[in-house]
Amino acid sequence: MPSQLANAIRFLAMDAIQQANSGHPGAPMGMAEMATVLWREFLQHNPANPKFHNRDRFILSNGHASMLLYSLLHLSGYNLGIEDLKNFRQLRSKTPGHPEFGITDGVETTTGPLGQGIGNAVGMALAEKILASQFNKPGFDIVDHHTYVLVGDGCLMEGISHEVCSLAGTLKLGKLIVLYDDNNISIDGKVDNWFSENIPERFQAYGWHTVANVDGHDEAALRAAITAAKAETEKPSIICCKTKIGKGSANKEGSHKTHGAPLGTEEITATRTALNWQHAPFSIPAEIYAEWNAAIAGEKLEQQWQDQFTQYQQQYPTEAAEFLRRMAGELPQHFEQHIQTALQEVCAKAEKIATRKASQNSIEVLAKILPEFVGGSADLTPSNLTDWSGSVSITPDHSGNYIHYGVREFGMAAIMNGLSLHGGVKPFGATFLMFSEYARNALRMAALMEINPIFVFTHDSIGLGEDGPTHQPIEQIATLRLIPNMSVWRPCDSAESLIAWADAAAASTHPSCLIFSRQGLPFIQRSAEQLANIRRGGYVIKASAQKDTKAILIATGSEVELALQAQIKLEQLGIPTQVVSMPNTYKFDQQDKAYRDSVLPANLPRIAIEAGVSDSWYKYVGLNGAIIGINRFGESAPAEELFKEFGFTVDHVVEVVQNLV
Amino acid sequence: MPSQLANAIRFLAMDAIQQANSGHPGAPMGMAEMATVLWREFLQHNPANPKFHNRDRFILSNGHASMLLYSLLHLSGYNLGIEDLKNFRQLRSKTPGHPEFGITDGVETTTGPLGQGIGNAVGMALAEKILASQFNKPGFDIVDHHTYVLVGDGCLMEGISHEVCSLAGTLKLGKLIVLYDDNNISIDGKVDNWFSENIPERFQAYGWHTVANVDGHDEAALRAAITAAKAETEKPSIICCKTKIGKGSANKEGSHKTHGAPLGTEEITATRTALNWQHAPFSIPAEIYAEWNAAIAGEKLEQQWQDQFTQYQQQYPTEAAEFLRRMAGELPQHFEQHIQTALQEVCAKAEKIATRKASQNSIEVLAKILPEFVGGSADLTPSNLTDWSGSVSITPDHSGNYIHYGVREFGMAAIMNGLSLHGGVKPFGATFLMFSEYARNALRMAALMEINPIFVFTHDSIGLGEDGPTHQPIEQIATLRLIPNMSVWRPCDSAESLIAWADAAAASTHPSCLIFSRQGLPFIQRSAEQLANIRRGGYVIKASAQKDTKAILIATGSEVELALQAQIKLEQLGIPTQVVSMPNTYKFDQQDKAYRDSVLPANLPRIAIEAGVSDSWYKYVGLNGAIIGINRFGESAPAEELFKEFGFTVDHVVEVVQNLV
Repeated sequence: MPSQLANAIRFLAMDAIQQANSGHPGAPMGMAEMATVLWREFLQHNPANPKFHNRDRFILSNGHASMLLYSLLHLSGYNLGIEDLKNFRQLRSKTPGHPEFGITDGVETTTGPLGQGIGNAVGMALAEKILASQFNKPGFDIVDHHTYVLVGDGCLMEGISHEVCSLAGTLKLGKLIVLYDDNNISIDGKVDNWFSENIPERFQAYGWHTVANVDGHDEAALRAAITAAKAETEKPSIICCKTKIGKGSANKEGSHKTHGAPLGTEEITATRTALNWQHAPFSIPAEIYAEWNAAIAGEKLEQQWQDQFTQYQQQYPTEAAEFLRRMAGELPQHFEQHIQTALQEVCAKAEKIATRKASQNSIEVLAKILPEFVGGSADLTPSNLTDWSGSVSITPDHSGNYIHYGVREFGMAAIMNGLSLHGGVKPFGATFLMFSEYARNALRMAALMEINPIFVFTHDSIGLGEDGPTHQPIEQIATLRLIPNMSVWRPCDSAESLIAWADAAAASTHPSCLIFSRQGLPFIQRSAEQLANIRRGGYVIKASAQKDTKAILIATGSEVELALQAQIKLEQLGIPTQVVSMPNTYKFDQQDKAYRDSVLPANLPRIAIEAGVSDSWYKYVGLNGAIIGINRFGESAPAEELFKEFGFTVDHVVEVVQNLV
Repeated sequence: MPSQLANAIRFLAMDAIQQANSGHPGAPMGMAEMATVLWREFLQHNPANPKFHNRDRFILSNGHASMLLYSLLHLSGYNLGIEDLKNFRQLRSKTPGHPEFGITDGVETTTGPLGQGIGNAVGMALAEKILASQFNKPGFDIVDHHTYVLVGDGCLMEGISHEVCSLAGTLKLGKLIVLYDDNNISIDGKVDNWFSENIPERFQAYGWHTVANVDGHDEAALRAAITAAKAETEKPSIICCKTKIGKGSANKEGSHKTHGAPLGTEEITATRTALNWQHAPFSIPAEIYAEWNAAIAGEKLEQQWQDQFTQYQQQYPTEAAEFLRRMAGELPQHFEQHIQTALQEVCAKAEKIATRKASQNSIEVLAKILPEFVGGSADLTPSNLTDWSGSVSITPDHSGNYIHYGVREFGMAAIMNGLSLHGGVKPFGATFLMFSEYARNALRMAALMEINPIFVFTHDSIGLGEDGPTHQPIEQIATLRLIPNMSVWRPCDSAESLIAWADAAAASTHPSCLIFSRQGLPFIQRSAEQLANIRRGGYVIKASAQKDTKAILIATGSEVELALQAQIKLEQLGIPTQVVSMPNTYKFDQQDKAYRDSVLPANLPRIAIEAGVSDSWYKYVGLNGAIIGINRFGESAPAEELFKEFGFTVDHVVEVVQNLV
């Protein structure tokens, strides 16, 4: 007979899912003991302050088991009442179908898309190591917590679990502890015919500590396993818990039918009898609440930490202030002044360089101001140019600030999200723009969570040349722009590159994609007003020299130079044109109408120029404009030949404009 | 001293990359012996007929080593001359930067995006097993070949390698043989700090046969290892070859500097001396050509198979004809008649059903006509509804036609590409539309290769309800439409669903995405002409009842019903409107202007309605139209509430139209 403490989770899950007539009871029921032992006996947290800096992080990677997490939060004393549980999966409730960061106190990350939660957890465990290395002092372990993750079969089938767990092993994240809900069931049924790998052996291959064959319904066995995992401080641990999906269900225990649908009132009634649970739906006896409540222990825990931190503040006032600033996600003083100084230098230099190089120069500036920067690349550092003079590779001693993610784009992005969610560090990470696709859903998750990692994507068009169509982005810029709440920059020179970086680094409620060229791009001279307008996402970079402007050229990145060259020829031909640089449509769309109209005056034909798919530009040029884009895959050839082949020439732009006006 | 047969590869690679001043010499040089032994002593192929049905498949998963493959093809006697090698990485050459399927004889798949090649190979090895099970007869192993793959560190770091190799082990693809180029170097340098996993142990965990610690420059050791791998017929094999990147380079051997840039003429000259290679660039001695040439052996091999197949044709004429039809990718006779009959039945039934159910009904129809169908789902079969009455799960005996891919979306898509490339089978595979993102770059690769797998994506909007924003597609339909050469269908009812399926099944030069609803959608009555026009991608589904049409409503999928309801109300209000169903913009854009103008007459305001991002619809409504879309993330709530919340109501549509006209 399972303990009634675990059964409290089971019935809250069953009843809430039944009330919503939607949800996943099987996993919360199967993991009830795992969660009970972990939360009641190990998890260091304070329900009254879900943001307590030194709390253990708990990640439910199999997010469809959301009612497990909501039950745990409710029972432990978080700000999540029984009414909230009754509103499970209802509009604007604190209990959406999958756990959502920012909606519910105590939810450390949004999960649901499988495998990413464990990626976030690796990021959190790594953030802990980095911060501990930077801030802890003899006698002061002010950063010292574990990261616990629950995962299911689905998470471990996903490729991203391979990427992040392999890296976690290499980086020796000894305070990362994974509890694997090994119930042998996934949606298609018993997993034997599609998932037969030996998980402990796989994780041993990654350099993990493994605890195999734990009975996931035996609290003593779970206790021993977690204790063993905590005792192993060098390697991350995975505890493989044999469980039954829907454990406790009178007739459906062990069946995939418990996975994704309410059990039904009849079955729930039978289960009440079977488990000797005498209480009405959503009614938990006071003694069970009392056993679960973590308020007092949590308050004491935080107070102890606070006492230690007060001493730390006295001995290390600078470090303490810096720690608090960084955990609060605040910019350092004079941030903007530094940027303006650097911008003046960039303008004075007026270099023709690849924007990826301009990006590296920008990192060099920012990294000096932002010690919270944690850079990295998915094994393309010398191509992405994401390292800088002060970057130090992170190895198993965790004292650096640069992560060699390996060829693991999706893992990188999920780890970056975890770093960002942990707080205290500000991650950026890079790959080729094409391989943003490998990471795409993690970028979306960052946007959904309204967090602010910086995704750097270089080699942004056919301009990368000979590597050919597998590496030449065509639709990628456009598709990134379609992610809600994603700020996508494609700068045209070193000035726009610096502003893009500064804007991304200062952002607090959205992630950014910074898109850079492989090839050199000339510097463009601007007035002070134009420089200020870069931040508006779109601005007039060159007005017509003559009156009676007849057309507007809109361009981004490497095509701004082309537009400016075409403008000269067009003016010679008696067609005054205005050139708009549009490095960031997300920012431009946020400007007021008056500003937008000043940049794109009505009733003038508009021509968009971008070395990518056309479709997204109709939004700005309408049905009567023209778009010089690329609506097919690229080719392998030297870049200059390709730009000609695809019509990115002054003559072609001039011809298109002439045909239009 | 490496053999001059292997050195021929090295110098072709060095010289071609130097001539292009671009490319990756390190990998071809490091893998030269691996390739030499494999191709000269094991690979069963016929250079004169690169499409010989029973050839071994060879996949270069680390596609940046393209000069290895081009050298092998050239030396073996394929239609790839020395002039082609001199044109490496030049526009319209047969030797693009990464190997491209369809451009170069003997290139089995396009590789470059790491990890996908091995996924394709798993698909090919699986196709071989499926076809062998379906067509081989006692004494007639007409389908009987191996699939060989070269992979590097990058491929094995990528998550997709985990997905596909885990599944390959479970499905016991014993004729899949992977040679791992373990050179300990990736772009960021020595891999120890980011890639330290134990590869043999990892693959043993997957149920593979592993051959560890092979000296990748020792031809005898390689020969023994491949022989051992072939001898193991139940498990797939991985041969871990310790190599030096840039092997043979006089001064750069073992350095990541050989990875992605030409060695330089000085270094190549020094290497000529070091390796005692006396020949000018692109000059291969006749005796080396003679040793490499596989024309005679290949012709004999194919003739033997042909002799056997001729006997098979006599004994099993039906099977033989079917085999040839399927390998040719031809539709069976009367395909279109079957579709028309089924369409009549669908129209007669006029059911209100979810389009995912209509999809299942369509599969039921098609699977009877197309025994080449190999269906599947990434562990969402009961949700995607991709099984049918005749579907049989594929297990290690390979006699079925339905693949339980597990929760492995990217792996599924890459395997589907491999199935498709192998020929003889027609794959479809499913997941939720949201998780198309996990697979995205493999969809793109299908489009780039101009092959025709069918990607099925269900749960297509906020209409999936309570699972919330992590599962509710917002930007996904729009982003799929942006992939060049991708046909994206979003049908509104059972009739459009059937046509979408029929069109996707008949397609030969492009893949298709079929996007279906979770929720029920009513059947819409149509004329014969309207039914025929579905294939055009957009058509007038309901003209104005009154004269003087004032506006055009364009809708897709679940929003067509809404548009039709709004039309009724608008007509009551004296605003005659025309409703256009636009299930496939890719097809619609291919129609002639007269047809497009008939559907979307100029000078009438247009209103697009789709439960997804608005931006892509400006292409059809322009700056003066209106778009009822969703430009933020979804919410967790019952579907009906969400449609109201997001403005998908008759009243709101009417209001928008009224404001516009």
